[in-house]
Amino acid sequence: MSSGSDNNTDNTRDMLGRGKAISVEHALELILKNTPQTPQPVEDVSLEHAYGRVLASEMLAPEDMPGFARSTVDGYAVRAADTFGASETGPAYLKITHEILMGQEPDFELAPGKAANIATGGMLPRGADTVLMFEHSQLLEDVLEAQRALAPGDNVIQKGEDVSAGSLIVSAGERLTPYAVSAAAGLGVVNIKAHARPRVSIISTGDEIVPPETNLKPGQIRDSNSYALRGMVADEDCVPKVRGIFKDDFGAILEEMKRSVKESEAVLITGGSSVGTKDMAERVISELGEVVFHGVTIKPGKPLLFGVIDGTPVFGLPGHPRAVQVCFEVFVLPALYKLSGLETDKALENELGSVSARLTKSIHSVQGREDIIPVRLSLKDGELFAEPLMSKSGLLLSMVRAHGAFSIEVGSTGMEKGEAVSVRLR
Amino acid sequence: MSSGSDNNTDNTRDMLGRGKAISVEHALELILKNTPQTPQPVEDVSLEHAYGRVLASEMLAPEDMPGFARSTVDGYAVRAADTFGASETGPAYLKITHEILMGQEPDFELAPGKAANIATGGMLPRGADTVLMFEHSQLLEDVLEAQRALAPGDNVIQKGEDVSAGSLIVSAGERLTPYAVSAAAGLGVVNIKAHARPRVSIISTGDEIVPPETNLKPGQIRDSNSYALRGMVADEDCVPKVRGIFKDDFGAILEEMKRSVKESEAVLITGGSSVGTKDMAERVISELGEVVFHGVTIKPGKPLLFGVIDGTPVFGLPGHPRAVQVCFEVFVLPALYKLSGLETDKALENELGSVSARLTKSIHSVQGREDIIPVRLSLKDGELFAEPLMSKSGLLLSMVRAHGAFSIEVGSTGMEKGEAVSVRLR
Repeated sequence: MSSGSDNNTDNTRDMLGRGKAISVEHALELILKNTPQTPQPVEDVSLEHAYGRVLASEMLAPEDMPGFARSTVDGYAVRAADTFGASETGPAYLKITHEILMGQEPDFELAPGKAANIATGGMLPRGADTVLMFEHSQLLEDVLEAQRALAPGDNVIQKGEDVSAGSLIVSAGERLTPYAVSAAAGLGVVNIKAHARPRVSIISTGDEIVPPETNLKPGQIRDSNSYALRGMVADEDCVPKVRGIFKDDFGAILEEMKRSVKESEAVLITGGSSVGTKDMAERVISELGEVVFHGVTIKPGKPLLFGVIDGTPVFGLPGHPRAVQVCFEVFVLPALYKLSGLETDKALENELGSVSARLTKSIHSVQGREDIIPVRLSLKDGELFAEPLMSKSGLLLSMVRAHGAFSIEVGSTGMEKGEAVSVRLR
Repeated sequence: MSSGSDNNTDNTRDMLGRGKAISVEHALELILKNTPQTPQPVEDVSLEHAYGRVLASEMLAPEDMPGFARSTVDGYAVRAADTFGASETGPAYLKITHEILMGQEPDFELAPGKAANIATGGMLPRGADTVLMFEHSQLLEDVLEAQRALAPGDNVIQKGEDVSAGSLIVSAGERLTPYAVSAAAGLGVVNIKAHARPRVSIISTGDEIVPPETNLKPGQIRDSNSYALRGMVADEDCVPKVRGIFKDDFGAILEEMKRSVKESEAVLITGGSSVGTKDMAERVISELGEVVFHGVTIKPGKPLLFGVIDGTPVFGLPGHPRAVQVCFEVFVLPALYKLSGLETDKALENELGSVSARLTKSIHSVQGREDIIPVRLSLKDGELFAEPLMSKSGLLLSMVRAHGAFSIEVGSTGMEKGEAVSVRLR
């Protein structure tokens, strides 16, 4: 008769039976509409601290790279014309007159018929236009046998051939990978203009919630949601600000909300489950700002509350751990992306962050809500299988063991064993 | 005549023509054989610092969770027997005598025919064995109409039903996700036994290498490799120790190598490209320890050098940025995993870290070596396409722009446009 879940209420009313829950798409639209684009200032960041940061303005190459014609092999800098017609059986003969030192500009001009020792990365001397590889030569005292014919430019990377001055290296709105930071270093770009990382306040509420180190008395439970949220926020290169645990006291939560809105770019408030305090977050948001919606047709996560206080988005997350996780991934993440200044190709990102897998058992769903089902993946004969992890028991373990989750759409009544689902990886 | 790459030497000899390069598989085998398992001590880590850490011993639940029978809905704690035969048209009548406060043990026993207000997460009083949802009831003054028949246990999660004391939460060798840390918090596990994070020394060498903030003189290039390596090492939750840039001076590099081996669990040394100093890293390793191999049939990355000093694995990476990247991903990563104590399902991880995509153009390869080709991915009509990014020019940009890379096997001469390749994502 009942599934035993925390969220199996009639899906057109919210937990208190007031009004209709809105669709996931509508909720996302309202969240993004009410989330400002990168409200925080642009910072100058050193290379050491640039990893993972979001670029605030495009990075252009300030100079050519390489800054000089370099050899791409170990061998001899020569004039291509001097190797004309050379082969293994009919080599050309050259005289080695110089050695090119790494990191120094050659102080000579290579004369016709001459060659200079050069290593990979070495700078070509004036006069030389190609490099003969060691492997295609033979050395007899200081006489060099060139066993290949070379064209000008062979085994050489020209000045500006990799990157020419002014070209775009990284677009604004991209997150800096180790390779992007490495490119910046190579080009001498040592001050990175990055968006400040959004600060995200995490407020836990509930008379029954106690810190993890507490020996539980009957009726109490430990705060675990703020630990999940802290990690998920940090994984997005945002700054978690854990505010602590607050009893269901309107005044105290109101004060903490005021501070949090002032000191962060987004606020996540969880819990508030006592009878009569269920709408505490809603009352606090109404008092200080505006409630935008309360209730979404998604399971788990249906009682999600969203509001805005002084331009700061505030998410009231249901206290149930799975609901916290799903609401974060589905609703909070897009807001954090916008606050971070990230400009991503969402379709491509979705594709790269998902895998297709076959269900190991059938799953029933209720029409009129989107069901998010956590799964554990396994590989068998090269094919991926998804084991749905869902039951009121084993909740904690299923959260720890899940590789990701898939979604059963609003209109569906379930999916059959063997069907392929698209699993979004964490 | 030549491809202009840094590594287009005959593939059965190394850069100095000495001996045969070994296969990728053989190289990996030798690397793992010579890399010790988690040489560093086990640490006690607080929850706040446990994210991303590798568990050194299995995490077991120290107690039942929940620690008491809890309601999973908002409603009324009742005796199931009192709802026998109840329906919307023929409800059972109960009297509300108590309200259960969150975080407190009910100080009464529920008598037959009675009900107590309870919220989600509330503790069931003695006598009660089920919870009637608000939605299935009607309240007339203090008389409750129960409109559903309930079985004992409905809408209740029993003591220990989520996790029973002693059950395995996370296995040794797993990396702690936010959900695992959250589970630990919920169970009161506040001291995490984790492997110390491997320290990885990064030594840059080369007379031509200067720091990124330098205005280049002709012949010089800026150190970019150490910035790529620092980021890649940190992304694996290891600790990068950037040692700085060293001229091609045997004594100085020898001293730095001694220090690095003492103070870290792995050493990465790049560069050493000058004629006559090409084998500097090899000489240093030979002097202090043993060279295990030099040269692998892979492109780029062929001149990879691997050795062991006092039990510490040392990688001599070719100075070319793409070679550094490929050698790190193919050869250094497995060693870091072992040093970290990670025990992963490699086949599954490979599968989840790769996507299938169609080549947008044909690629030629040389038999006898494995070619690693960076690609940029795009989505068209729901299908993924991989654009190979390879040329001597545009190297820097192609590294920044690549989403991942695929491999052309040793025996293949290339792949055709439209063929599906498995792209390993970064």
